[in-house]
Amino acid sequence: MRLAELSERSGVPATTIKYYLREKLLPQGRRLSATQADYGEEHLRRLKLVRALIQVGQVPIAQARKALAAIEDESLDQHMRLGAATFALPHGPDPDENDPATAVARREVKKVIAELGWRYGTEDCPTPAYQMLVTAVSALTRLGYPCSAEHLKPYARLAAQQAVQDLDLVESYDSPIERAAAAVALTILYEPVLMSLRRLAETEESLHRFGSA
Amino acid sequence: MRLAELSERSGVPATTIKYYLREKLLPQGRRLSATQADYGEEHLRRLKLVRALIQVGQVPIAQARKALAAIEDESLDQHMRLGAATFALPHGPDPDENDPATAVARREVKKVIAELGWRYGTEDCPTPAYQMLVTAVSALTRLGYPCSAEHLKPYARLAAQQAVQDLDLVESYDSPIERAAAAVALTILYEPVLMSLRRLAETEESLHRFGSA
Repeated sequence: MRLAELSERSGVPATTIKYYLREKLLPQGRRLSATQADYGEEHLRRLKLVRALIQVGQVPIAQARKALAAIEDESLDQHMRLGAATFALPHGPDPDENDPATAVARREVKKVIAELGWRYGTEDCPTPAYQMLVTAVSALTRLGYPCSAEHLKPYARLAAQQAVQDLDLVESYDSPIERAAAAVALTILYEPVLMSLRRLAETEESLHRFGSA
Repeated sequence: MRLAELSERSGVPATTIKYYLREKLLPQGRRLSATQADYGEEHLRRLKLVRALIQVGQVPIAQARKALAAIEDESLDQHMRLGAATFALPHGPDPDENDPATAVARREVKKVIAELGWRYGTEDCPTPAYQMLVTAVSALTRLGYPCSAEHLKPYARLAAQQAVQDLDLVESYDSPIERAAAAVALTILYEPVLMSLRRLAETEESLHRFGSA
């Protein structure tokens, strides 16, 4: 297909596609003439992944390029390729090691992870999400709000159930590249969905407990 | 207590407290002299609520003032007061009514809300969280990712379970003002906790399904 069709089928504007080509995030098409090239289904799949990382995930170009290399490395299994895609996502500031609340947060998070039997997100294997979790729990600790391991465990168990749903959606895609794109896009795009469902549910639960009429 | 003690016990800097006093977010203390005033426990509680709204929740001053008036209105029940606090929270852009994806999103959200038997978050009662949900589901729709009512329902059921935990935490506080402060702070501060728990859980679920060794 020509660039115009690639743009139409992907929903990505032609100027953006040209930018991705210049940045080598997308391989060149098969050259037909000095001004025209032909693109295949592989370009379309790759383009969706690039868009998921850059546009939806706000991943910086250099980091996206690194993640793309891992996702397309056929010597890696599906798990490693999904990890390469999702670990590239921005995860906010790292924990402040000079803040005493950080040590408290690490201790509580460690208990939660042990209880759930998770193999990632330990101090030996500090994935981006683990760092994000420690930072978030430190903020609660510092302001004196409840966030001990006992408070966090029920939320961790619900997160495990969300992840089953998430991976079911990811598995509905066929190729490793499409699955990596879906993992990135669904991780990010479902965040506001889940936050607003929680806020709606809180209002219902408050009505149920405290409503007078 | 004097301003210095109020600052120390609340963790809010004295200059910030003076700003809240000028903006009438906090009532004046009992005047002791031209330069000194006395503050009570009620000021401390109110200050935690102001901090939760402004600093943690990023609520604009004018909107915070309105929310505070409702939270302290003793003619309202606990449910209405919690609502006044949490509805003031920023909820991102409203749905774009010119985008066909918005109509699709509204239709699917409506099915989810009906299925769960929720009384808020309908078109008749468009709470901020409902608008936020429609906007988020429209984004998924526009990019062609799965987000039908069937996809959303399991997440909505998990959100209802999160809300039970959330309201248990809120109920661990005694006064209506402290509960409103906790509802705001815990709604906001737990968002990054829940997002990072989900990302950690996704990695575990991916390892479980796709890991090779």
